[in-house]
Amino acid sequence: MRALVFDLFGTCVDWRGGVARAVEVVARERGLDVDPFAVADAWRGHYGSSLATVRDHHRPFVDLDVLHRESLDALADGHGLGGLDDAARRELVAAWHRLDPWPDVVEGLVRLKRRFVIAPLSNGHVALQVAIAKRAGLPWDAILSTDLFRTYKPDPVVYLGACRLLALDPAEVMLVAAHNNDLAAAHASGLRTCFVTRREYGPDQTRDLGPERAWDLVVGDFVDLAQRLGA
Amino acid sequence: MRALVFDLFGTCVDWRGGVARAVEVVARERGLDVDPFAVADAWRGHYGSSLATVRDHHRPFVDLDVLHRESLDALADGHGLGGLDDAARRELVAAWHRLDPWPDVVEGLVRLKRRFVIAPLSNGHVALQVAIAKRAGLPWDAILSTDLFRTYKPDPVVYLGACRLLALDPAEVMLVAAHNNDLAAAHASGLRTCFVTRREYGPDQTRDLGPERAWDLVVGDFVDLAQRLGA
Repeated sequence: MRALVFDLFGTCVDWRGGVARAVEVVARERGLDVDPFAVADAWRGHYGSSLATVRDHHRPFVDLDVLHRESLDALADGHGLGGLDDAARRELVAAWHRLDPWPDVVEGLVRLKRRFVIAPLSNGHVALQVAIAKRAGLPWDAILSTDLFRTYKPDPVVYLGACRLLALDPAEVMLVAAHNNDLAAAHASGLRTCFVTRREYGPDQTRDLGPERAWDLVVGDFVDLAQRLGA
Repeated sequence: MRALVFDLFGTCVDWRGGVARAVEVVARERGLDVDPFAVADAWRGHYGSSLATVRDHHRPFVDLDVLHRESLDALADGHGLGGLDDAARRELVAAWHRLDPWPDVVEGLVRLKRRFVIAPLSNGHVALQVAIAKRAGLPWDAILSTDLFRTYKPDPVVYLGACRLLALDPAEVMLVAAHNNDLAAAHASGLRTCFVTRREYGPDQTRDLGPERAWDLVVGDFVDLAQRLGA
């Protein structure tokens, strides 16, 4: 194994907490009564179907900022954000560029980087990922993302394209993710797989509570992963 | 200005010294009488025309390892390397993945990274650049390269594609290069330009001895650049 590629949202960074905090700030400034976590959950709830419109070729490629804005516009009325002006909506979309990593992520990545090439492999576009990495100090060797291939995960083009860019065979690359469907797609393309247990949806999480198949590795966090790989 | 993108070969790393050292090692092991610097110069001499075969759509995209191998095969006989076996030739092609930075590069980039997004924008493919950056400690925020666009500089697709991936207007991006033709192409696409004085060809260098146009900045090295930009 030569390289580790990582899902970003939920696996490396806490999108739910970061988005909820941004919603809370915007709502307070405008005197709106909203449930910030309900907004974050509803927003992420649109995620899968919004990606699919591009992945299934129903429209030309647009990046995640565009999809996030469309989803926000669709959910705003139902969550007390109907009156938000354009500037506030853009501010909320930009909150997805300022997400904090889970506490183990930087230490784990610093250790893993000594032995392996490490890169994200996210549905977030390059600019979004650069912003997150720079702010959070994620020490990536490269930024890999689905916009390089103008589609979205779990399109196999993404996993195979990442291996091609790294000039590695799929069996030399491991995807690390907190999501079973992402790992299933990577596995189908021949990559190795590591499930990391996260609680990205909070205490009421109902999905991805554990590995649903016999992934190559199952770890508690990135420091655990580094130890398991001798890094 | 938000981002700086950097030419790699000659601007950040000493391809001539690194390649010559690898040639010397291979030649000594095989008892061959060669001039290592002449080989390096001849190899680089094929560079422009080999890139053009792809850039001008005379063939499908192939990466720089493929072009380097073809050029090596073409020059080997004339430079005392005709008897080299395949393994040795592959070793020499791989030498382009192990080039040392000029002495000012790491310090300059570390400082520039505090204020700007920094990325290479090289004809070297992602895997080659990851190898160089990892070995040399180049602290890039992202790896940008022409293989993302399946063409080579100075195709404008490269400069505009880099700006698109960074989600920046060309005027928010500066190309730093030791080559006037690279800067001319970047300028034509609306990027800012910085000429850095290098002696990549050694004491007998005849080209790119200085700026040939009024580039936005002219600097002696990357530490000078950091100081000029207040980083």
